[in-house]
Amino acid sequence: MKEITILGSTGSIGKNTLEVVSQLHNQFRVVGLSARGNIELLKQQVDKFHPKWVAIADEEKGEDFKKNSKGLLEGVFVGEEGIRKLAGEKVDFVVMAIVGSAGLRPTLEAIRVGNDIALANKEVLVIAGREIMEEAQKRNVKIFPLDSEHCAIFQSIENVKREEIHKVILTASGGPFYNYDVEKLSSIKAKDALCHPVWKMGEKITIDSATLMNKGFEVIAARWLFNLDWDKIEVVIHPQAIIHSLVEFVDGITVAILAHPDMKIPIKYVLTYPKRMKGEFKPIDLKGISQLTFFNPDEEKFPSLRLAYTAGKTGGTLPAVLNASNEIAVEAFLKDKISFPQIWQVTESVMNKHKPKFNHGWEDIWEADRWARKEANSIIENYETRMD
Amino acid sequence: MKEITILGSTGSIGKNTLEVVSQLHNQFRVVGLSARGNIELLKQQVDKFHPKWVAIADEEKGEDFKKNSKGLLEGVFVGEEGIRKLAGEKVDFVVMAIVGSAGLRPTLEAIRVGNDIALANKEVLVIAGREIMEEAQKRNVKIFPLDSEHCAIFQSIENVKREEIHKVILTASGGPFYNYDVEKLSSIKAKDALCHPVWKMGEKITIDSATLMNKGFEVIAARWLFNLDWDKIEVVIHPQAIIHSLVEFVDGITVAILAHPDMKIPIKYVLTYPKRMKGEFKPIDLKGISQLTFFNPDEEKFPSLRLAYTAGKTGGTLPAVLNASNEIAVEAFLKDKISFPQIWQVTESVMNKHKPKFNHGWEDIWEADRWARKEANSIIENYETRMD
Repeated sequence: MKEITILGSTGSIGKNTLEVVSQLHNQFRVVGLSARGNIELLKQQVDKFHPKWVAIADEEKGEDFKKNSKGLLEGVFVGEEGIRKLAGEKVDFVVMAIVGSAGLRPTLEAIRVGNDIALANKEVLVIAGREIMEEAQKRNVKIFPLDSEHCAIFQSIENVKREEIHKVILTASGGPFYNYDVEKLSSIKAKDALCHPVWKMGEKITIDSATLMNKGFEVIAARWLFNLDWDKIEVVIHPQAIIHSLVEFVDGITVAILAHPDMKIPIKYVLTYPKRMKGEFKPIDLKGISQLTFFNPDEEKFPSLRLAYTAGKTGGTLPAVLNASNEIAVEAFLKDKISFPQIWQVTESVMNKHKPKFNHGWEDIWEADRWARKEANSIIENYETRMD
Repeated sequence: MKEITILGSTGSIGKNTLEVVSQLHNQFRVVGLSARGNIELLKQQVDKFHPKWVAIADEEKGEDFKKNSKGLLEGVFVGEEGIRKLAGEKVDFVVMAIVGSAGLRPTLEAIRVGNDIALANKEVLVIAGREIMEEAQKRNVKIFPLDSEHCAIFQSIENVKREEIHKVILTASGGPFYNYDVEKLSSIKAKDALCHPVWKMGEKITIDSATLMNKGFEVIAARWLFNLDWDKIEVVIHPQAIIHSLVEFVDGITVAILAHPDMKIPIKYVLTYPKRMKGEFKPIDLKGISQLTFFNPDEEKFPSLRLAYTAGKTGGTLPAVLNASNEIAVEAFLKDKISFPQIWQVTESVMNKHKPKFNHGWEDIWEADRWARKEANSIIENYETRMD
């Protein structure tokens, strides 16, 4: 029985992971769970899975929980530091399902103690992909991508030499607004954007999908996860979201991975790798779908993808700035403070203002992250003032 | 440098193989070539590739060639026996590109001396798939499928346990008449049927593609090549012929293999396996294709697929009868002796008349083959009499 810690267990990926663990009974023991502040759900998960340790990011709720659960658990860790402490407890597998840059330090902590990682968070690879992968290699830690697209690529290029790969193509559903006119984009509200046509996901990633920034992040993550040159990574719009990735080899053969858009599929794949475990699933009925379509991404209408390539190729501290300003902009959009196109406008403005540092250390990354958040917030305040 | 013999070098697969060998300069030495009767092309190939041995099935042309090439080659083998002799010369790789049942004995001969085989002929697996695979296993001979669909499956299930496979799906372009009304099928002439919408191939296989019997043969071949249960093999019509096969795993993930319909791609894959060699190729432009479509095969209109499943599942000597009567019927159709739908009608009639033998030996297979040809011919003669 493998011991597993799930960081971010009350989010969408966390819940799906616990469901998969239940299906794979007696193969995994859940020893650690963490949440930001959804204590009610966390308690239910604790009652069901009896972990040794729990971590809660929200300090107040965490202290409260600690008091009330005295003696019931081996450890209750509180605050951001508590999350890192849990990540650093030695287990067989850490599922990193914390959203955004908050996932970075716990991921590093897990790597440092030698925990293999199932990584659902791509922001950590956007901010510090090179550093994370180097750290993992140094400690012989395996990082398995939980994201459906990366998990698909992983399957296609296992044991394949890099020189045999001609191109890796990530598919994007295009999100709910792909066919909107440019003018109509400004009138989109958060509640419209939260209805993804294909995937049921958390709020942040749903908005990132709608702007195509999510796909941009995936491009950067793919570069680091699989050690690929930038010009070997492409994106294609594929509204049915049945094909998750295509890998074109130098001999003219392309391998495509298909699956229903259900996160439990890649989660199970990674947890049980290298075996493929039988599970309940609806087979893909190609005859029922009857057609699969593909388009070029419209970078005029949705510039996020271009911003991500720019940040990734430039490197240095620019990807951290891309991520931080996007996080702030998405948050503002979710609170109806800015319009939909302003999400990438904020990000682009902050990026343009940034003087990236190269040959940078961790401190430079944290500094760029802080700086970008401040800049993004001040741009957003300006927008608001103008709107008033 | 690997030594290679190409049986059927003047046919479509044979010519493509020689082209690939030329591209892969200094990796292969062509030591054996065989032809049925196209001496002119064979001579050109001999001049270019300088094999040690040549075999010619046509006795007269063979003796003639032997006389004229005295001293130039180490061996010129004549007649069906000559082809078998060439197959039995020890080399690194035999490419079996002889069409139809004529490929069976040379294939067996190649296996018996331990030659690894790149198999383009599926009829040999239809007639005696179990026996061929058992023989190969006994002598530790590897059989690589050259057919694009089987080559695609091979790539998808390499190192995969059989219990992890949920379904193997072969795609079929549907051939040139897929959208014809049933009534119109009777008026098809051989010259219409020889225009395949996607592949450029030999005559026999082009007609088999048009009737969908080729796909039926592929189902039977897949059963033996990959040791799959019949109910795990399905066929889907996919007119663009870009996806060659799909393998659905028990965990809900499907692997599809895509390539342009160019036989040089699977030939190169097999010859250079397990490496993927860079080559000139047009990448698949999904955005250019813009859609991939899939339908259920229409077994009412094209009953060949059903006949093949029946023969395969029944087993014994029935698959040999399926193949032999189809060969005779296709020949008759190519000579405008019978109509297009009569191809499968002849085959079905002969199958219905056959009392299959089980626990059969090789002699029973040859006997069933002979019997079926006689029966098919006599049915065709009857048709002709009625038509007069």
